[in-house]
Amino acid sequence: MTEAVRPSRLDPEIAARLKRDSGGLMAAIAQQYDTGEVLMVGWMDDEALHRTLTTGRCTYWSRSRQEYWVKGETSGHLQFVKSVALDCDGDAILVRVDQVGAACHTGRRTCFDADVLGAAVGARPGSAAAGAPVPSVPAAGG
Amino acid sequence: MTEAVRPSRLDPEIAARLKRDSGGLMAAIAQQYDTGEVLMVGWMDDEALHRTLTTGRCTYWSRSRQEYWVKGETSGHLQFVKSVALDCDGDAILVRVDQVGAACHTGRRTCFDADVLGAAVGARPGSAAAGAPVPSVPAAGG
Repeated sequence: MTEAVRPSRLDPEIAARLKRDSGGLMAAIAQQYDTGEVLMVGWMDDEALHRTLTTGRCTYWSRSRQEYWVKGETSGHLQFVKSVALDCDGDAILVRVDQVGAACHTGRRTCFDADVLGAAVGARPGSAAAGAPVPSVPAAGG
Repeated sequence: MTEAVRPSRLDPEIAARLKRDSGGLMAAIAQQYDTGEVLMVGWMDDEALHRTLTTGRCTYWSRSRQEYWVKGETSGHLQFVKSVALDCDGDAILVRVDQVGAACHTGRRTCFDADVLGAAVGARPGSAAAGAPVPSVPAAGG
């Protein structure tokens, strides 16, 4: 496990459960608490998580600018925190929020609205949608 | 941008939009398509995304085992793909799925069910929940 790379006041008992990437970061998913929309994915280090847990607003770490940012601080599109959960191996954080306005810097409600990929749709056997056979898994690297 | 680190048959037009981390990976969020539950976060490289797009089932890259895995291949807890979207900067993937059984290896429905952190709850000004003032943002690294 990579240690925290920046100083933080995060509760040591929480910090001990984190599995950080080589940059000291965890993926943080922001989800609208009442509709369930997945709004965006950001990155948090220990201190960003600490601020998110203690201020009622989401704080992320900007990998490009190498600094903390409070979501919406300049745009007004704040994320008010409703709950925060770690995943089972401590490398992802789910923050349920009340998103003011657009979550995406493009002005769209979510960061996933603009680029839907063509995908083969799967269906569990026996379901009404399971008409067509699912293609077999292709071989690696061919 | 890091180039793909393993060979892949992913559509080059999609590959050109990806922003990979130093290991050639993007974060992939699996969300139950009908309830909106965020089930888990995995990691995909170009080829895992290609397989997810073409087989109807989610394939991830295991960072610990350094190999591809089809979700549920051993447990039976398959994820049938309903839709796949890239985020605005190409470093995260949202896969809406139909999850058979538990998404988490612990047997829980989602990987975020077990470790809910204590958090100060925020509320937008003027909302019914906005009774208590939101604490000010703490200074860095104190």
